[in-house]
Amino acid sequence: MRDLLPAEVKKRRAVINTISTVYERHGFEPLETPSMERLEVLLGKYGEEGDRLVFKVLHRGRKLERALGRERVSPRDLSELGLRYDLTVPFARVYAAHREALGSIFKRYQIQPVWRADRPAKGRFREFYQCDVDIVGTPQLLAEIDLFMAITEIMGELGFGEFTLLLNHRGLLRGLLRALGAPMEQETGILVTLDKLDKIGPEGVRKALSEQGVSPSLLAGLDPLFQLVQAGAGAEKLKDFFRGLDLPPEGEVGLRELFTLLDWAGALGIGKRIRFNPLLARGLDYYTGAIYELRLEGEVQSLGGGGRYDGLIGSMAGDQVPAVGFSFGLERLLVLMEERGMFDTGTPAKRLLIAAVEEEAIPFALEVAQTLRHGGLVADLFPRRQAPGKVFRWAQRARIEWVVLAGGEELRSGLLTLKNMVTGEFKKIPKEDLPGFFQGI
Amino acid sequence: MRDLLPAEVKKRRAVINTISTVYERHGFEPLETPSMERLEVLLGKYGEEGDRLVFKVLHRGRKLERALGRERVSPRDLSELGLRYDLTVPFARVYAAHREALGSIFKRYQIQPVWRADRPAKGRFREFYQCDVDIVGTPQLLAEIDLFMAITEIMGELGFGEFTLLLNHRGLLRGLLRALGAPMEQETGILVTLDKLDKIGPEGVRKALSEQGVSPSLLAGLDPLFQLVQAGAGAEKLKDFFRGLDLPPEGEVGLRELFTLLDWAGALGIGKRIRFNPLLARGLDYYTGAIYELRLEGEVQSLGGGGRYDGLIGSMAGDQVPAVGFSFGLERLLVLMEERGMFDTGTPAKRLLIAAVEEEAIPFALEVAQTLRHGGLVADLFPRRQAPGKVFRWAQRARIEWVVLAGGEELRSGLLTLKNMVTGEFKKIPKEDLPGFFQGI
Repeated sequence: MRDLLPAEVKKRRAVINTISTVYERHGFEPLETPSMERLEVLLGKYGEEGDRLVFKVLHRGRKLERALGRERVSPRDLSELGLRYDLTVPFARVYAAHREALGSIFKRYQIQPVWRADRPAKGRFREFYQCDVDIVGTPQLLAEIDLFMAITEIMGELGFGEFTLLLNHRGLLRGLLRALGAPMEQETGILVTLDKLDKIGPEGVRKALSEQGVSPSLLAGLDPLFQLVQAGAGAEKLKDFFRGLDLPPEGEVGLRELFTLLDWAGALGIGKRIRFNPLLARGLDYYTGAIYELRLEGEVQSLGGGGRYDGLIGSMAGDQVPAVGFSFGLERLLVLMEERGMFDTGTPAKRLLIAAVEEEAIPFALEVAQTLRHGGLVADLFPRRQAPGKVFRWAQRARIEWVVLAGGEELRSGLLTLKNMVTGEFKKIPKEDLPGFFQGI
Repeated sequence: MRDLLPAEVKKRRAVINTISTVYERHGFEPLETPSMERLEVLLGKYGEEGDRLVFKVLHRGRKLERALGRERVSPRDLSELGLRYDLTVPFARVYAAHREALGSIFKRYQIQPVWRADRPAKGRFREFYQCDVDIVGTPQLLAEIDLFMAITEIMGELGFGEFTLLLNHRGLLRGLLRALGAPMEQETGILVTLDKLDKIGPEGVRKALSEQGVSPSLLAGLDPLFQLVQAGAGAEKLKDFFRGLDLPPEGEVGLRELFTLLDWAGALGIGKRIRFNPLLARGLDYYTGAIYELRLEGEVQSLGGGGRYDGLIGSMAGDQVPAVGFSFGLERLLVLMEERGMFDTGTPAKRLLIAAVEEEAIPFALEVAQTLRHGGLVADLFPRRQAPGKVFRWAQRARIEWVVLAGGEELRSGLLTLKNMVTGEFKKIPKEDLPGFFQGI
């Protein structure tokens, strides 16, 4: 966890602002959920590792006393609340609870911190922001393409030219595994291993699969696909591969859906940004349809990902509620934008600072500040009466463009002394001309 | 804790946006701190009750095992982290840690949630936002008046006409008690009781003080002050009262500071908004100078408060670092603005919704949405192909102004069908005229 100093907060806000603005332009509504959720809601949704990484909140008062009074204290007795681990599960809970108010179709975005008790690493924090967008209430691909439009627009507005949304489909993956004769119980394990392709490479995946007990014939069946993907085969070539298999119906549906999405994306002029990758698996259990992952050339880590999850909300709401979602990896985005110099850091941090240099001139300095602010200008007031030299040194460090001095002389003449901290130049300007002067430059 | 649905989030954001904008115009910089702090930082700063209300985060893994393996498990063994209880203590920690980077004078604002394990009550939540503003590094009253300027401007921009910033001074309070012969060890207890004046009335305060063992002569000495305050005595009358006492030097300084602030506020035209109240005490231990509380006519609860705290940062930084701060009660502000109808709820929630009514028209509908959004318009896409009647019913509920239908007919003619959901009127508009149409109305 870290303190975010002003320069950091400003960058973060600029990015969050761009993301929110685009989402709102696309009709998504903002939602916020509490930092804490009941453990029964959180646990069991993220797999075993996830459960371990949930921060738990200690009982208090009598509940804690009672727990500690037991013969044998178990961790389960000590907590019933945990900190949000992601934004999808809280969203599913909220939608299930407020369905009437939120409507049959609900498009929401949510930008809030989540907490994971992960081993801290470079660029990885235990508290970090997620930016989620989800559409609930439709089984149709219009939802997926609506997300793709928003995601590509956000990347463009942030200034990323080259990025790729890798696309695959859980139905196609399952169909593939079935067509190649994989036993049902190996499915999840195989998907989890496939998901590591980028980190451990095809050889690593083959080795891991074989260690998991995947049969040589299944491995051999997957082989041509590894080769096609490594060779950068296009969508049509990949389609041919799948056409050559005896896909079960869910695989056929998956394949058809992928190509519908690719067609629509092409018509919208964002086809180049979306690439079919039949080995993309995504880690989470709850995906059921199209899955996708945002990638930048040369970066191993993804910038975000998502997919269709038609079962998760139903598990809380009681009946099936289809949904699709996407989550931006905000922290990763920020690191990359910093590394690539995508933030403007050349301009002064602040335009102007007003400093009272003599006791008697304080009310005068206050009035000048008030007038400038009422004119909509950002006008910092130096909260300490000090000699001009000290004020200038402070202003220099704080990257302020202009210092406005108000002392006894200025009070009597009505002429303020300005120093441009960039050029070193001094100016005298009548009090009443000051707003115009700053609005004009 | 509560889920914030879109309408709620939008109001909250509008208020937060106003507050941030004014603070930035006044030269305050944004800061954010982690949700969790080490317990050693949090505990002991808020008094005994505060310590009890801090949410503690349970140890995990080996640390937890070790703790639970003990003969007798104590709460202290189970946790080393707690959730932020306010924004002042984390700020003091950050400033002490990053002093070099933040500069000798630092003006920051911070708007983040805090957590208190309080008994939930109407309008009181265990997770709530605080909006803090602080100035560090100056013992001068320029800091206080800078805050007052920002606070009064924020209240004005939010639409509150009548509000009062009650003003008092810890030095004056201490001087008063000493002049009246109060023993040092009773001081804190008396201040805590005085702070309840609004809730329990002057009779209640007298009774509580006497039960605390405050001497009859001290009570008698305070009596004229109670009467003056109840009669709504002005600053000059109150000054006369204090002039009649034999105030020790810190009392004299307090009185002088208060009147300097009142003078400056008068010169700025905000004098009417600031009122000297010599019984205002504020709960927190760490205040050392001027203290103030934001009030609305007829409201018992304050809308915010703050004061000078010259010792708190020093207790972490090692040497004295003067500071002043103010915290808005955002949740209370929101409740009042809702009650008083200060949010605009008459206008439609959204301008337009695009709906594809036939499969073949989907790419066409997508393209229309894309064009409108690229034109800067908020254009929601209905993510489900459905019969117009159903779309209209949904749009009605979602308070959308216009529905744009794209079906096979529209695709072929290039004329889109629009329905105004407010008037019921239908229109046909060529695809290329659509951005202009919506930008024009």
